[in-house]
Amino acid sequence: MYSDRHPDGNALPHVVVIGGGFAGLWATRALAKAPLRITLVDRGNHHLFQPLLYQVATAGLSAPDIAAPLRHILQWQRNVTVLMETVAGIDTAAHEVRLERGDALRYDYLLLASGATHAYFGHDEWAAHAPGLKTLDDALHIRRRILSAFERAEAETDPAAKRALLTFAIVGGGPTGVELAGTLAEIARHTLKREFRNIEPRDARVLLLEAGPRVLSTFPESLSEKARRQLQRLGVEVRTGTPVNAIDADGVLLGDERIAARTVLWAAGVAASPLARALGVPLDRAGRVAVEPDLSVPGMPEVFVAGDLASVQQDGKPVPGVAPAAKQMGRHVAAAIRARIAGKPATPFRYRDYGNLATIGRMAAVVHLGKLKLSGALAWWFWLTAHIFFLIGFRNRLVVMLNWTWAYWSYQRAARIILGSRDS
Amino acid sequence: MYSDRHPDGNALPHVVVIGGGFAGLWATRALAKAPLRITLVDRGNHHLFQPLLYQVATAGLSAPDIAAPLRHILQWQRNVTVLMETVAGIDTAAHEVRLERGDALRYDYLLLASGATHAYFGHDEWAAHAPGLKTLDDALHIRRRILSAFERAEAETDPAAKRALLTFAIVGGGPTGVELAGTLAEIARHTLKREFRNIEPRDARVLLLEAGPRVLSTFPESLSEKARRQLQRLGVEVRTGTPVNAIDADGVLLGDERIAARTVLWAAGVAASPLARALGVPLDRAGRVAVEPDLSVPGMPEVFVAGDLASVQQDGKPVPGVAPAAKQMGRHVAAAIRARIAGKPATPFRYRDYGNLATIGRMAAVVHLGKLKLSGALAWWFWLTAHIFFLIGFRNRLVVMLNWTWAYWSYQRAARIILGSRDS
Repeated sequence: MYSDRHPDGNALPHVVVIGGGFAGLWATRALAKAPLRITLVDRGNHHLFQPLLYQVATAGLSAPDIAAPLRHILQWQRNVTVLMETVAGIDTAAHEVRLERGDALRYDYLLLASGATHAYFGHDEWAAHAPGLKTLDDALHIRRRILSAFERAEAETDPAAKRALLTFAIVGGGPTGVELAGTLAEIARHTLKREFRNIEPRDARVLLLEAGPRVLSTFPESLSEKARRQLQRLGVEVRTGTPVNAIDADGVLLGDERIAARTVLWAAGVAASPLARALGVPLDRAGRVAVEPDLSVPGMPEVFVAGDLASVQQDGKPVPGVAPAAKQMGRHVAAAIRARIAGKPATPFRYRDYGNLATIGRMAAVVHLGKLKLSGALAWWFWLTAHIFFLIGFRNRLVVMLNWTWAYWSYQRAARIILGSRDS
Repeated sequence: MYSDRHPDGNALPHVVVIGGGFAGLWATRALAKAPLRITLVDRGNHHLFQPLLYQVATAGLSAPDIAAPLRHILQWQRNVTVLMETVAGIDTAAHEVRLERGDALRYDYLLLASGATHAYFGHDEWAAHAPGLKTLDDALHIRRRILSAFERAEAETDPAAKRALLTFAIVGGGPTGVELAGTLAEIARHTLKREFRNIEPRDARVLLLEAGPRVLSTFPESLSEKARRQLQRLGVEVRTGTPVNAIDADGVLLGDERIAARTVLWAAGVAASPLARALGVPLDRAGRVAVEPDLSVPGMPEVFVAGDLASVQQDGKPVPGVAPAAKQMGRHVAAAIRARIAGKPATPFRYRDYGNLATIGRMAAVVHLGKLKLSGALAWWFWLTAHIFFLIGFRNRLVVMLNWTWAYWSYQRAARIILGSRDS
């Protein structure tokens, strides 16, 4: 077992953290000085700054600009071993995490923070036609689809087929859908302006389809309305109250209306990582674990859940699945584990809401901080500063700032390179 | 047909260029003011600065740092239509290029510049175990292999298996092999120094295997010797006169000696793109077309071949397959087409050799310019300046410089992100 070979010796309690996202990484860091050894397991080798993932999907940033290797971030924290492995199962009775390759990890404390994935509301067959955006590979796949659609439209001679190639439908009017729609409209109107001979990229149709009554439903109504107007100004057709009935290779079905769209992107639903089922406790409708106030699993005081996988109610409302909440939960779990080791009781978790930001496009965003509501250019500058500040690693911040400054003045996007299979 | 819809009208002669590498792109640009219309066809959407491809493979640069969309580069050149399409065949009698999708392109002049690919000397079964480096996808595949080998070694408990995971064999001592070996040694010794708990990355073994008597055989012998010594100083085991007899999933066979290596990289052989066969003329052993002095194909004055696909002899020596030669050939073909249109005779191509550079690692390179021979730090600075200068696009240069400055001081590499399938 890996843990037996830890240089700190076997006497220390062993904490296994599954997932190197905001919850897992922040918990691990907060345990830097605790008398224990930690094994952080992730399927990938990197921590991902998910709030900027849409920029990789829309060719504004390169994949490495918004990610950093977990073992690099944690190189100075000597009580952590990072393993790039896939978890095959969890034996809560034996206190063991089984890995797809290699031996099981025995834990004294376990933090399950494997996050969320796309959910197609029982329509898994839509996944092939409407990719979602959760990982860097997802982002590169979406980038390939978007850029290839314009390339194929240039070569297409049939007008209807050309039209379908230049129609982009984004399903879901939350922050990711809004970001994708706004940025796509900007690409079509500005970035590609002079580059084609047989199509006018600005004729591209970008539809944002939302089943509910408004976009950005977690914001106050006035900001949803401002967001809608900003999207429309950028050239996005916003359709609220429009559930999608079917998605296939040719487009989407909205009620009786069929829209021919060769690019459909999914930003509508997320479900908790299937690993939650391995705990053998009841899950909510989205597959999340209803945790105790201290974020431990009911009946298993040594197992914690944090981030998108945890269902936490506060003041009658669910704590949202956003990065700040995941970081706060991660830090809270670290404190709870330290308390357990010291023989003290764990305190209940309390989410501090510092506000809500969403970007829409160039000079377009909405910000909600307590009583403060901003939209337009000021909100955009606020969003920009906050996101560059929170990016992990000095070098990434510099590169992202450089890319954005260049993109702002030139209307260009730095990562318009189609990678991977060319037939999608 | 695409060409019929060109805004400049059908009266102008139509030039089809296959391949947006150095030869194809430089030919296209040199025809900017000529009275003709051009269709540039490439399988990908980008021009690639191939001399820095090894930096993407070794996680120093992101893929978009060394590539730019062809249609972006050519956006102001109104006589060009760029098509991202795969060529299915060439009908030289009908003067037509057949595409995998869509209609054929009729040409008045054709430039075939589809470059080279890896060749395994009749051992195609080696390809699965020893990836080569020609495209961005190749580079990302190699990056994944290298980084995953260290990750798996960290989790491996069997000492022999761990040893094999930490053994890297590079086949071929030309510039690409030397760059890969030198950079890999630096990654093992410096970049990953503090990041693992169960392995010592600096114990990794990096072997450079060359069948011939020396590395960098196109350089003077004294520089080959200097390169070997610089490689050894970086920690590379250089084995010359060492042909590889077999490659499989477990490693390489050198004569009777079996070396267990889970990562084998191929930098030994290239062959011309199979498209050359479509011309129906005799090819040399490497699949290249022996062209006329003006770079046209024997018996087809309207068809030209340039770049790695052209076999050109000069003063009894072959013109090397390097970027400057491809650019010069591209420009020469443009001049030959302009001459044909003007009813003048085409002049013979003459390669101007401006020198030969190869980088090895941090502060290690060799430079050969006429009588000037440099090695070590001075050669490295020369190489660095030249390569940043020749990168296409202002933004790329800035980003690459920033990355390299950061990498130089921190010993870090900016793109250590494993993308794509995790099971390789």
